[in-house]
Amino acid sequence: MDVKDDSTVVNLGRHLLAEFYDCNPNILNNLQLVQEAMLSAAIACGATVVDSKFHHFSPYGVSGAVIISESHLAIHTWPEYGYAAVDLFTCGTACDPRMAYEHLQEKFKSGSAYCSELKRGLINLSTQKMIESPFQLEAQSSTTTAAPHVVGSQQIAQPQEV
Amino acid sequence: MDVKDDSTVVNLGRHLLAEFYDCNPNILNNLQLVQEAMLSAAIACGATVVDSKFHHFSPYGVSGAVIISESHLAIHTWPEYGYAAVDLFTCGTACDPRMAYEHLQEKFKSGSAYCSELKRGLINLSTQKMIESPFQLEAQSSTTTAAPHVVGSQQIAQPQEV
Repeated sequence: MDVKDDSTVVNLGRHLLAEFYDCNPNILNNLQLVQEAMLSAAIACGATVVDSKFHHFSPYGVSGAVIISESHLAIHTWPEYGYAAVDLFTCGTACDPRMAYEHLQEKFKSGSAYCSELKRGLINLSTQKMIESPFQLEAQSSTTTAAPHVVGSQQIAQPQEV
Repeated sequence: MDVKDDSTVVNLGRHLLAEFYDCNPNILNNLQLVQEAMLSAAIACGATVVDSKFHHFSPYGVSGAVIISESHLAIHTWPEYGYAAVDLFTCGTACDPRMAYEHLQEKFKSGSAYCSELKRGLINLSTQKMIESPFQLEAQSSTTTAAPHVVGSQQIAQPQEV
């Protein structure tokens, strides 16, 4: 079934998978900075923050999730590779996860980033029934900036415990 | 670049996107049951739970995330459609997110489910450099059970607040 051409089909969830490369490793290894970036990204995209939980791993890396009224944002960072994997999952039209993507690219000083937009939970409005299928890939894009960072574990300063 | 055939390329993250259809709506609308299912799914797949955060939305739906040492599990449920979107993100080889997927399918009494496995964060082991690309789709599969549930908002009992 070609769900793309059926105007009565909508998706319950909008899911952006972001790959941030060539980031500042000291930002990616700092729990407080990563948490602040994710919370401000939620606000930047128009979401309402319900709660959040972040964790710093030894020696490198931060994982965390922000629960928003419109779903969630999640992150895992690998500072030693200057890489962060981010998921921005929203429902409804009140917020635009692409704003969070752009916000994070700037916050992490990412020199190169990819964004894949997926549709989750397709529903036929006429029948009010779910269309049982895997996710649908809606779009993919990439953005680069002029000032990439040289990454390497030797550059990463150990942040103070928060 | 064909990263699939390059044995020196590995992925930092393994990301399963699960679509659970035809679930028991009263389970999907119960914060405690959803949280218990997600925490036991983490244990079932061999993960170490660091923390978790769940939220019930009015009138229907639960969102939540479990931070694990190996990354995170996240869920959003639409009880009125018998649907749950679940993300199972793991790093390393210590745990197998497919075990969590199978565990949740049983816990939610899902009649039909789809699982998409993505590779996140590709790295060339020879050069120790990231391969800058979007996620790679590794595999997709579906499973059905013999006893689907009839879903509809009129069937959903409002759970007690937890």
